[in-house]
Amino acid sequence: MDPFLRAALEEARMGLQERGIPIGSVLVIDGEIVARGHNRRIQNGSAILHAEMDCLERAGRLTAADYSRSILYSTLSPCDMCSGAALLYKIPRIIVGENRTFQGPESYVRSRGVELEIVNDPECIALMESFIANHPTLWNEDIGQPTC
Amino acid sequence: MDPFLRAALEEARMGLQERGIPIGSVLVIDGEIVARGHNRRIQNGSAILHAEMDCLERAGRLTAADYSRSILYSTLSPCDMCSGAALLYKIPRIIVGENRTFQGPESYVRSRGVELEIVNDPECIALMESFIANHPTLWNEDIGQPTC
Repeated sequence: MDPFLRAALEEARMGLQERGIPIGSVLVIDGEIVARGHNRRIQNGSAILHAEMDCLERAGRLTAADYSRSILYSTLSPCDMCSGAALLYKIPRIIVGENRTFQGPESYVRSRGVELEIVNDPECIALMESFIANHPTLWNEDIGQPTC
Repeated sequence: MDPFLRAALEEARMGLQERGIPIGSVLVIDGEIVARGHNRRIQNGSAILHAEMDCLERAGRLTAADYSRSILYSTLSPCDMCSGAALLYKIPRIIVGENRTFQGPESYVRSRGVELEIVNDPECIALMESFIANHPTLWNEDIGQPTC
């Protein structure tokens, strides 16, 4: 597995160990990980700290020049919010672990010029399939779906 | 002025008093303000706490049923990230103070079924025009534009 996607998957597993939603993300600039994040809905009672948002927040205030050379990795297809954050900062490339269990606005993101690569890695898929089966209510809350 | 837009404008002015970027937001459910927020890029060193994001975070973990009855107010046209957050949570209506100094992906948001109302309030416009004229570098950073 791509070592950066592996790092995002490690973040996802850290989230699971914290009894959180197991989605992880890393931001790479010039071949180095500059920030790592994972979903913190449960841990922080957060409505906005999806993995990619947590990662971008931990990266801190970067310049447009920094973002223009960056690659955002996520274990799962970015939702509307996280895709929007990538569009705001003109992140040119997103590598996605899988889009089998959830699919964000991929066509729209591509139409805005972002290179979106879907790996569909078996470990990423298995991690989310297991979580969704065991915690459907939490999962629906995280993607803005009715929970009952 | 609509009292909820007035409340968002008060948030924007609180941000300015904190030497931050003067954009404010409130979330209204069933005729009551459930959360208020303002841009915290400067105050918190944050890359994600735009006014609407701060407001949604302060609202806490809501149900899809809560969001489905909500109205998001912002003093400024929501950017890609904040529009995406509203789409994730299926917020059906957004009231925007102004879109003269900045315009987010309004057509796309409308195409996804959101009712987007642009007020173009003179106080909201004047506040942002003044800030952008005095702090162009900060402003460009906040909207992902080159700062030099």
